[in-house]
Amino acid sequence: MIVIGERINGMFTDVKNAIRKKNKEVVQKLALDEIEAGANILDVNVGTASASPGRAMAWLVKTIEEVTDTQLSLDSTRLEVIKAGLDAVSNPPMINSTQADPERLAEYLQLAIENDASLIALTMDVRGVPQDTDRRVELAGMIVMTAMEMGYPVEKLFIDPIIQPVKFAQTQVNFVLESISQIRLLSDPAPHFVVGLSNVSQGTEDRELINRTCLVMCIAMGLDAAIMDPFDKEMMDAMITAELLLNKQIYSDSFLAAYRSSVKK
Amino acid sequence: MIVIGERINGMFTDVKNAIRKKNKEVVQKLALDEIEAGANILDVNVGTASASPGRAMAWLVKTIEEVTDTQLSLDSTRLEVIKAGLDAVSNPPMINSTQADPERLAEYLQLAIENDASLIALTMDVRGVPQDTDRRVELAGMIVMTAMEMGYPVEKLFIDPIIQPVKFAQTQVNFVLESISQIRLLSDPAPHFVVGLSNVSQGTEDRELINRTCLVMCIAMGLDAAIMDPFDKEMMDAMITAELLLNKQIYSDSFLAAYRSSVKK
Repeated sequence: MIVIGERINGMFTDVKNAIRKKNKEVVQKLALDEIEAGANILDVNVGTASASPGRAMAWLVKTIEEVTDTQLSLDSTRLEVIKAGLDAVSNPPMINSTQADPERLAEYLQLAIENDASLIALTMDVRGVPQDTDRRVELAGMIVMTAMEMGYPVEKLFIDPIIQPVKFAQTQVNFVLESISQIRLLSDPAPHFVVGLSNVSQGTEDRELINRTCLVMCIAMGLDAAIMDPFDKEMMDAMITAELLLNKQIYSDSFLAAYRSSVKK
Repeated sequence: MIVIGERINGMFTDVKNAIRKKNKEVVQKLALDEIEAGANILDVNVGTASASPGRAMAWLVKTIEEVTDTQLSLDSTRLEVIKAGLDAVSNPPMINSTQADPERLAEYLQLAIENDASLIALTMDVRGVPQDTDRRVELAGMIVMTAMEMGYPVEKLFIDPIIQPVKFAQTQVNFVLESISQIRLLSDPAPHFVVGLSNVSQGTEDRELINRTCLVMCIAMGLDAAIMDPFDKEMMDAMITAELLLNKQIYSDSFLAAYRSSVKK
């Protein structure tokens, strides 16, 4: 499982203040703590912290790379912010994210190729998030085919079938689960699957329970990456256990500790 | 989700002693507590508590039915013990369980028809538990077809793809998950799916974590019944949340409490 740590995001007050005050220590400590907790990739999102989001992204990237070589996920809906991150980053990054509109998709794939980057692609287009399984699968098929045509390695592609809040769109989780199991069959090798997990529990009163239960269900269907909070220890335990049950980690009586020591370098 | 409470089993010391001393109160309290905790059916298993297991089964059944009309699952590998339970029981019971050997299966189906009983059928035969998905699916297909031929309603049939301990047979959980998703497609209506959940965590040091994670994964694939411990509140929470995410219970902020009040009569 690829854990993409979600905490370096300007939506969180500590990160927002750190960006505004150029407080490197807060950001660097968060990065190292996320890695310590099990993050394999660090998502980096400026949020609304800065009137110059491109410059803020570049600062965040450079600040984090001063203390770690861990892959960074450059997270923005704005292309110029992604590009500012790409200019600043040293190690091969992840681009988070493109949508499936043909022109936009081709542009982002080209950018990923030029920058040796992994790419998250959402199964949505100008018409918005599909309200069913079929359209998600159709868009994913188009994404995978375009990547192959452009010579982009499918192993670096992360399909995001878009989890919506169970409180406001209760039928949608089913579609995400079905989509993962169907899209897996589209190509060999299959792309990775990723979700922005915390979205499912927006507005609910049992966020951690809903997050970790949803994560385990998605893993059962074939999810192999998630943008999530690595500091949620119970969720990490559930994730490790789900992978154990799928025979992705060799059993030992202390499998939780074994996993944790194996991901730390 | 159909919760089959596992606690009235002579393998547990309190139940063993209650059977030996004919202590009705212990058994009746356990039965009512299991129902209160969310059990929809009560499994009844004499275990090794008595040299006359048939008589012990009859006593357990009569003792429980003095205080509740909840369906009882008559659990034994011995036909004469099941029959003693069938003679004693008043409400339509569940028979737990038959294997898939043709003669044995036909005999149990006939017994279920005559007694208006639900039936758990294991996907195993004289050759033992299959060590793959295909043979489980093949045996399930044979079970469903035999039931249909004999006029037994598929809605009363519970296929058990047999979970084995992750500690000793780590590849097997995958096969169970795949089997459920494949067997679902065999007939319309599909049979129910049930597992004896606690088996997966035999010999491990994190039994509750492994049990509830496995349960959530199975539910994602289509499991709709489990023989399990209704007193494990965290597992019940996980189960209720998984069903919420599958849109089987209407969302409310207090969905856990809503579920619990809905199952109590």
